[in-house]
Amino acid sequence: MENINIVLLSGGSGKRLWPLSNDIRSKQFIRMFRNEDGEMESMLMRVYRQIHQVMPQATVTIATSRKQVSSIRNQLGDQVHICVEPERRDTFPAICLAAAYLRDVRKLGGEQPVVVCPVDPYVEESYFEAVKELAQMASEGESRLSLMGIEPTYPSEKYGYILPRDGERVSEVRGFREKPDEETAREYIRQGSLWNGGIFAFRLGYLLERAHQLLDFADYQDLYDRYGEQKKISFDYAVVEKEKDIKVLRYQGQWKDLGSWNTFTEGMAAQSIGKVTMDHTCNNTHVINELNIPILCMGCRDLVVAASADGILVSDKEQSSYMKPFVEEIQQQVMYAEKSWGSFTVLDVQEESMTIKVLLRQGNRLHYHSHEHRDEVWTVANGQGRVVLDGVERQVGSGDVIRMPAGCKHTIIADTSLQVIEVQLGREISVEDKQKWKLTGIS
Amino acid sequence: MENINIVLLSGGSGKRLWPLSNDIRSKQFIRMFRNEDGEMESMLMRVYRQIHQVMPQATVTIATSRKQVSSIRNQLGDQVHICVEPERRDTFPAICLAAAYLRDVRKLGGEQPVVVCPVDPYVEESYFEAVKELAQMASEGESRLSLMGIEPTYPSEKYGYILPRDGERVSEVRGFREKPDEETAREYIRQGSLWNGGIFAFRLGYLLERAHQLLDFADYQDLYDRYGEQKKISFDYAVVEKEKDIKVLRYQGQWKDLGSWNTFTEGMAAQSIGKVTMDHTCNNTHVINELNIPILCMGCRDLVVAASADGILVSDKEQSSYMKPFVEEIQQQVMYAEKSWGSFTVLDVQEESMTIKVLLRQGNRLHYHSHEHRDEVWTVANGQGRVVLDGVERQVGSGDVIRMPAGCKHTIIADTSLQVIEVQLGREISVEDKQKWKLTGIS
Repeated sequence: MENINIVLLSGGSGKRLWPLSNDIRSKQFIRMFRNEDGEMESMLMRVYRQIHQVMPQATVTIATSRKQVSSIRNQLGDQVHICVEPERRDTFPAICLAAAYLRDVRKLGGEQPVVVCPVDPYVEESYFEAVKELAQMASEGESRLSLMGIEPTYPSEKYGYILPRDGERVSEVRGFREKPDEETAREYIRQGSLWNGGIFAFRLGYLLERAHQLLDFADYQDLYDRYGEQKKISFDYAVVEKEKDIKVLRYQGQWKDLGSWNTFTEGMAAQSIGKVTMDHTCNNTHVINELNIPILCMGCRDLVVAASADGILVSDKEQSSYMKPFVEEIQQQVMYAEKSWGSFTVLDVQEESMTIKVLLRQGNRLHYHSHEHRDEVWTVANGQGRVVLDGVERQVGSGDVIRMPAGCKHTIIADTSLQVIEVQLGREISVEDKQKWKLTGIS
Repeated sequence: MENINIVLLSGGSGKRLWPLSNDIRSKQFIRMFRNEDGEMESMLMRVYRQIHQVMPQATVTIATSRKQVSSIRNQLGDQVHICVEPERRDTFPAICLAAAYLRDVRKLGGEQPVVVCPVDPYVEESYFEAVKELAQMASEGESRLSLMGIEPTYPSEKYGYILPRDGERVSEVRGFREKPDEETAREYIRQGSLWNGGIFAFRLGYLLERAHQLLDFADYQDLYDRYGEQKKISFDYAVVEKEKDIKVLRYQGQWKDLGSWNTFTEGMAAQSIGKVTMDHTCNNTHVINELNIPILCMGCRDLVVAASADGILVSDKEQSSYMKPFVEEIQQQVMYAEKSWGSFTVLDVQEESMTIKVLLRQGNRLHYHSHEHRDEVWTVANGQGRVVLDGVERQVGSGDVIRMPAGCKHTIIADTSLQVIEVQLGREISVEDKQKWKLTGIS
């Protein structure tokens, strides 16, 4: 098997791990694990690293929404392919779009093995050994569809169950069961059922056939253009439940769903991340501090404390699973975001002004753009670069000030890494007020 | 009695109510109560308002250190006199300096009644009725020294005790006792003892006599100039314990020492102040948020949560009384301060730059100053005013940018209220790097 094609499904709303996740930073982008070199990495970076270690020959395509593209490029650069969904449908159209992308953009043949994986399981490398084995099974045509079944560790009500025909490592599938109540779950486990890990392996041609049966499209570009017309239908319902020829591979290693603070903290590299002091009477408490100011915790029990530019959470770990409606009530603009070119942090918001810190990585630039309703002032706090104002380029460095009245087309190019303080001025400051322009003749 | 002279002793280190208190903002300056008009007020503002309501004829002199002057002027304006201690000694030199100030600067006669009060008791107005009565007793010469005795509500180990001769409302004093253990305290209370409220009433002449007996000085200016040479000695030791002719006035109303978070939260106007959401499972939890980002608390029990530009505290209320050593370990520059002209907030600190938000109240100005080692850039975010750069004045308004290279003398004058974003640039950014200059010819 020369090639393995991994499709990572990267979704997520950002409510359940507030304030570290928000509308443009889903949980898979939070840097809260530590790799072997001691560097902080996100769930996405961890999963990508693990894939690369176990399957150096694999190519990874991330199926995601437009707003996650900047974060993915920031964390993984150009090593991955990104297949952008024009809008949210359900998993079947998303996987079909990725399949069409593999065939029409990446020109892969129908015999190629594809494994679709969620981006957010917290697992050890043996999990990706199993993924590799699933790719092998798909490649060899052992069944039309291959799944991963996770050996249950408790009668969970949160997962779907797969019923294998026998207790072998690889088994035919007898059927599927929806999320059960605890008692039913206990019975499923007694019968040898497995958790459905949401991993699907198949040959590319198989999926494209299904895609054309259920969706109306010609090729990738056509599906992309008419994506909004496609029906919302899950991959499980459209494909898995209708397929008779399915095998399941049993996986017994570590597998955690870090979807809420209560479970997320179990994956944390340490009790605390960032500027944090905890006294000796703190117990079962995890603290993540992304702010520059210190957090002092004393006598805290069973708490999660998380602080970011978006807000501060102080919650009993159990209770944190009920936070979604409260977070939905909080009307807060995005205060921090990773972008393909670096990151921005909102420092201060007033009625008619906003102050932002912009960090550009060396060799990157902002989009060339202008604003209709606001003036902007840049103060270069550190680094060397060039600005382009209405087509005129000039050198700038630490201490330089650049004024951009409304309508002025502008960008900044980072020749070294650059720190810029941006003050936005106007009565109507909105992220919507941005006109993009084509920049020519600038290196 | 035509005149009452109140001397408020305003001290405090700022460790025990971190992060709302810091080296230049002691607890009495934290705005956490609500007055009858619904406005937030500090302990100092509350005490001053109560004094004024009960004794409209009283004049108030605040004895304090230099670093508190800006906060006092910010909160009370010019309605109070301020007697600045050149450095910290103990209570006797401080009260002597205030007495000399009353005689030599305010030209009061020796027969004038003076009541010395701590600035930080949380009390109702009846307390100041008692203060007024003490002033009356001093004025009429009922005894050379009059004290307030607080009716104990429990056998506290934190306070000194006054032993009255009888159970009358006003009684001669039989003696004093140091902070006892709980059992001894119980015995004192059985004997009818009272907590020493730290209030001293006397005629001005009486205290000046004592002052000249124990300290070596000619007048106010001389004492001020040679303040550092004076011995550190408490008023209790120097005066109270040596005086035979003392009366005590019994006070039975509300009296709280809000010196630690555990007690401080008892005085809070509401469970939370600022942008705070608490779910219904929170219990006995108080939250103060001075930041612009929201705090969400869920399932918190017996906690105090406090967030300011200096840091974030999450503590069990009981445990918070042990915070001092932890706060001393936290090396954090002052991130927010009230000044006589307005306030500043540090927004961002980098290795070679710092971004600050400066708010000037209408009609105020910064000191005219320069820096040796850093450049500065101001962006006016809102308002109208004038800058003076090396003696040259010019109008500025929203959107204007002012650059001040190292060495440039500069100030800004707020003709309306002004918001300015200041970026400081340089390798050695320090509050010490500030040279003040005299500004002439500017209105």
